[in-house]
Parts: sequence; structure tokens; C-alpha cells
Amino acid sequence: MSKMILLEGERIDNTGFGDIRIIQKPEDFCYGVDAVILADFGSKFINGSKARFKSAVDLGTGTGIIPLILSHKTSLEKIYAIEVQKGSFDRAKRNVEGNSLGGKIFPLQLDILGAAEALGKGTTDTVFSNPPYMTNNGGLKNSNIAKELARHESTATLEDFIRIAAELLRDKGEFYMVHRPSRLVGIFSFGRKYRLEPKTVKFVLPNRWAEPNIVLVRFVKNGNAELKIEEPLCVYDEDKKKYSCEIMKIYERAD
Amino acid sequence: MSKMILLEGERIDNTGFGDIRIIQKPEDFCYGVDAVILADFGSKFINGSKARFKSAVDLGTGTGIIPLILSHKTSLEKIYAIEVQKGSFDRAKRNVEGNSLGGKIFPLQLDILGAAEALGKGTTDTVFSNPPYMTNNGGLKNSNIAKELARHESTATLEDFIRIAAELLRDKGEFYMVHRPSRLVGIFSFGRKYRLEPKTVKFVLPNRWAEPNIVLVRFVKNGNAELKIEEPLCVYDEDKKKYSCEIMKIYERAD
Repeated sequence: MSKMILLEGERIDNTGFGDIRIIQKPEDFCYGVDAVILADFGSKFINGSKARFKSAVDLGTGTGIIPLILSHKTSLEKIYAIEVQKGSFDRAKRNVEGNSLGGKIFPLQLDILGAAEALGKGTTDTVFSNPPYMTNNGGLKNSNIAKELARHESTATLEDFIRIAAELLRDKGEFYMVHRPSRLVGIFSFGRKYRLEPKTVKFVLPNRWAEPNIVLVRFVKNGNAELKIEEPLCVYDEDKKKYSCEIMKIYERAD
Repeated sequence: MSKMILLEGERIDNTGFGDIRIIQKPEDFCYGVDAVILADFGSKFINGSKARFKSAVDLGTGTGIIPLILSHKTSLEKIYAIEVQKGSFDRAKRNVEGNSLGGKIFPLQLDILGAAEALGKGTTDTVFSNPPYMTNNGGLKNSNIAKELARHESTATLEDFIRIAAELLRDKGEFYMVHRPSRLVGIFSFGRKYRLEPKTVKFVLPNRWAEPNIVLVRFVKNGNAELKIEEPLCVYDEDKKKYSCEIMKIYERAD
């Protein structure tokens, strides 16, 4: 494994996925359970598909956590990791090199609005995104610009993310997104508007007695209209303190 | 209670809601748990609202089960029960008269496509519908015309039901619908298209280990975009043989 150089304010963590380590800057943004369960959700469809998906694009990759996990859980050959914010992009680049994944993961410093032009329309097999959850009007704004871009729809809206995913994907290509259940009407409406049909939904609950606070959606480009609601995923166990078995399995850790 | 006259092939049942009895023709159609949980779902919002909802329209009422339950569970003053099929409409009329509810429930033999013209646009407080679940292309067709109309979108589509509900409702009026989860993308997309915003979703599962097979949706005319997913409802108990406590409560029966 290559040496990884840390800059001021950064730290390095073991991801728990193989030997993969990740540099993050806590002051800016650290990845959460959302990114991990999204990568796992998409990986299961990629591994279970007869379509032999080879390429992926991660829209708004941050420090590259989703591509790093995908390189471990799937046999995808080319994963483009798109990030507009300079600091995060720079860390994503060092994370790819430091984990010797330069032949598989390709970080690009790009606004997602330019992704389809840069990579070519209708050519990608799969797209991932863990976009900002809050509208530009909603929630407390953050004075830290990196945190602000990661949490609010400052430069791209929910509709933009879905439209760009639709432009990137080939016929029957798949888009995997994580978001808040409160935005599900927009997610479905924009999906249908851009011929990216929502096919599978999985709700994520903090625990068995709570309402869902995260939703995973799988879309198929030009898919037929029939939605499947999967069994929900509980993040915490019955005692509400430990991770549930399902989450431990996703993190590939023993219980 | 008035005397209820039964015609050939008909039977009469106690609904369990107060003294309300209902004439049905099993060969044509009998109401299911869907209609009962929809009436209960809407009643809770009507009773809990500060808006003092007074009027309701039931689109495709069959023999009138939803209006009959609403007359028991709410203080709605005028409930229009719309049914195009002559046999069902005739039974709905006898059910209203036989239960002495003629001052509250008004059956109308009408195609739902003509409902907004007949009752006036933008004047209704609440709308209910338990529409046909299958598209005109899907599922086995039934040679019995009454069953066929109740199950397939023969004369009106999902989009028609949502559009007509939007036309009937006043600003901030509410629409309560039951349908299959597989159609949820269309339900949300058409809702937003006609400014009938989906605000609450409740999934109904046969039992705790199954995927949902029914979904209840509450829409608000010109409502703001924020969806709430309620705790799911299980129809059967853990042993999969008895109705669950929640269902017994909806049916107002002791456990």
C-alpha cells in the first residue's frame, strides 16, 4: 500500500472494507452511514444482474467513499468520481492513489451539471449519488463552504441530479440514489419526467419503532412502470444502542 | 331501522360499524379490507383536522361501503356516493335508505369522469377512492362486467381518478386513496401534475415479515412538498392467522 500524505486538519481512517483507508477533513465533511448503505444497495443489484455492468459514475463523490466501497464490493472496471469542491476532490485523488486504485477509480474535478458532456451521453452502465438533502431554502445554512455544498442544493437541485443521471445512462442502465423520504414525491416525479423509472425502494429506519429517515431508490433508464418496495432496513438494534445485524453485515464486521 | 329488500343473488351482512348493515351481490363484488382501512385512514385526518371538513365524495363507491363507514366514524354532513354500474348503484341506494342515512349519503349514478361537472368544481372538502387496481392491459380479465369494472381501469384510469379528485376539491381539500404499492410512482407523479400533493403514505403489510401489498395515500390540494411515511399497518398477527390488534381496532371489534 502506498504512503498517504495528510494535510492540516485531516485524519485517516480504516473503512473496514478490505484494507481500504480514507483521508477526510472533519471540519469540512465526513461520510456517514448513508453512503455506505447506498454503495451496498447498488452493489447487490450490480452483482445480481445478468447485464454485466462495467462502468459507474458517482455524482458528488466527496472524498470518494462510494467508489472506494464499490471497488471492494463489485467487479466494476471503471468508476468515475465527480466532485466540484477542490479540497474534497484533492482528498479523493489521494485516497484513490493511496489505496492503489488508480486503474479503476478516476476522480474528476467537475460540476455535476457538466458530467454528461465530459463523459458522453448514454454510455454509462450505472450511476450513484448521495446528493445534498436540503433545498436551498431549507435548514440551517453552514458558513463552511464545503459543508454547505454537501448539505444544500446550492449548485445543483434534486431535479438536476436525476436529469444528469438520465443523460449519462445507456438504455436499461441503473441509477442508485439515497435521500430523505420527505422528498420522495419529487424523486418519483422527476424520475418519470426523465425516463428514469423508479423500480425499487428500500426505506431505512433508525430502529424498528421509528419512521423511516432515509430512503434508497433504484431507477432503470427506460424501465417499465412497476415499483417494488423492499423490506425496510433498521440501522440500530432493538436496544437502540448497537448497530443491527443487517448493518454489521453491510459494514462486513462480525457481530 | 327500515326493512331492506333483497333481490336474487344478494345477501345482507352486518358491517360491525354500529347497526349498519349492507346488501351485496357476491357474484358481482364484495367489499374488502382495503375499503375499510381507507375509510378509517381518512376518518382520522377528518376528525383530527381543524378545518372542519363537512363534505365528501366517494369516487366509485360500489355498494356504498366507504360512505356507510364514514357516516359512522365522522361528523361529515354530506357524502356523495358515485357509482356508474347500475346494479351496484341500486344496492348503494337501498343500503343508504335501509340504514336511514338518506339525509347524509347521496348516491348518484354517474361516470366518475362527469363528477366535477355534476357537483361543481373546487367545492368539495374531501374525496375518497378505492379505484380499480389493474391497468386495462394487466391481470386476468373477468367476464362478469361488474367485477371487471371494479378491478380494471376499463372506463377511467389512475390518472383520471386523481384529476377528477383535484377538480372536485377546494383549496387545501384532501383526497384519500388506497392502491397497490407497485403503482406508487404514477400516484405521486399524477398527484403533483394536478396540484394534489401527496402528504402522507401508510403501507399495509399482510404480516410483519411481508412486503407491503396495499398503500394508503393522503393528498392535499395545493399542499406544500413534504411527504410523511407513517408506521406501517399489519393486517394479520404474528401467527399469520388472526387479524392484528390494529385491524381489530379499525373494525371496532374486541380482540
